[in-house]
Amino acid sequence: MPTLRLSYFDIKGSRGQVARLAFELGGVAFEDARLNFADFTARKESFPYGALPILEVDGTVIAQCNGINRYVGKLCNLYPSDAVQAALCDETMDAIEDVSHKVSPTLFLKDEDEKKRAREALVEGPLPVFLKRLAARLEARGGEYFADGRLTVADLKVFVWIRSLQLGVLDHVPTTLVATHAPSLVAHHDRVWANPKIRAHYE
Amino acid sequence: MPTLRLSYFDIKGSRGQVARLAFELGGVAFEDARLNFADFTARKESFPYGALPILEVDGTVIAQCNGINRYVGKLCNLYPSDAVQAALCDETMDAIEDVSHKVSPTLFLKDEDEKKRAREALVEGPLPVFLKRLAARLEARGGEYFADGRLTVADLKVFVWIRSLQLGVLDHVPTTLVATHAPSLVAHHDRVWANPKIRAHYE
Repeated sequence: MPTLRLSYFDIKGSRGQVARLAFELGGVAFEDARLNFADFTARKESFPYGALPILEVDGTVIAQCNGINRYVGKLCNLYPSDAVQAALCDETMDAIEDVSHKVSPTLFLKDEDEKKRAREALVEGPLPVFLKRLAARLEARGGEYFADGRLTVADLKVFVWIRSLQLGVLDHVPTTLVATHAPSLVAHHDRVWANPKIRAHYE
Repeated sequence: MPTLRLSYFDIKGSRGQVARLAFELGGVAFEDARLNFADFTARKESFPYGALPILEVDGTVIAQCNGINRYVGKLCNLYPSDAVQAALCDETMDAIEDVSHKVSPTLFLKDEDEKKRAREALVEGPLPVFLKRLAARLEARGGEYFADGRLTVADLKVFVWIRSLQLGVLDHVPTTLVATHAPSLVAHHDRVWANPKIRAHYE
């Protein structure tokens, strides 16, 4: 195994969390380097695209979360070897990035009224539409996993995002949103959560 | 080879163009289904995430452009088999998606003054910063290609985007922007353009 160091914020969600869970499930040793915001700001210009996560593999720096997830998925037997199944796994991870790009602009709104209006606009349209589309893709493949008929990094990516919605990480987005519009994604979330290694990671 | 149908708009750029170029270079036969905007609107709800491109592989629908590029790259010998090089290829493709997400909101602004201000704000900061970071990644790997020491789908992705900037596809973004801030990306563009199959595709 190469020497692996994952650098990300000290939070249990968002873009760096999927690789941590994959390492956990695969039983692959890595350095879990957690940065606070001051560390990040001080080191930001040294990161390839000024952002986290980054993964260092024997010193080679890899940026961009889904490429990291894919690499870690290969190491940890959580990425399909079949090319079509791999593409379906990729599709799912990129879909979550797409919706994250819709939500991101609302994270930095300082005016609370403006943030509330922006979040409510997401709840009125884009989020339910996306949740239904994502659920339809899952259901079309049998309803259990997004690719390869087994747990892959795609499932971890969806799990981390759905978990954040259910926990109410986004103010003004009801924690019942997923259950209302996409119950199969709640069942999917609970399927991943039932894995003892996943639960242990959070507990 | 599977039966392949790529569906995208009838334009020579943006998210569906990379797969077309990869098919061209790989000499792999595919159906190049081109939709006008009315076709797209009529069929939008049938696409997994309401968007194009999609690729059908023996009838299985794959959405999300970079997953499609990766799948086509594997078929056409334009994707690294080494996992670290693959991750660097992925990093580059996702970086272009990141910057596209910064530009996208300005595409649909109807007020010309507002569009001008938004584009000028991109030119003042985010675009030069991104171009310099992208160029630094290329230069750190020798300056010729983004991964694997040879042409991959990452190079095609960068080429299509740089080409659009150089052609002035975005009003209020100077066509000299890349040359000013990232001359190594102009050289990279010209290296891809020098491929006779690429040039033939456009001519």
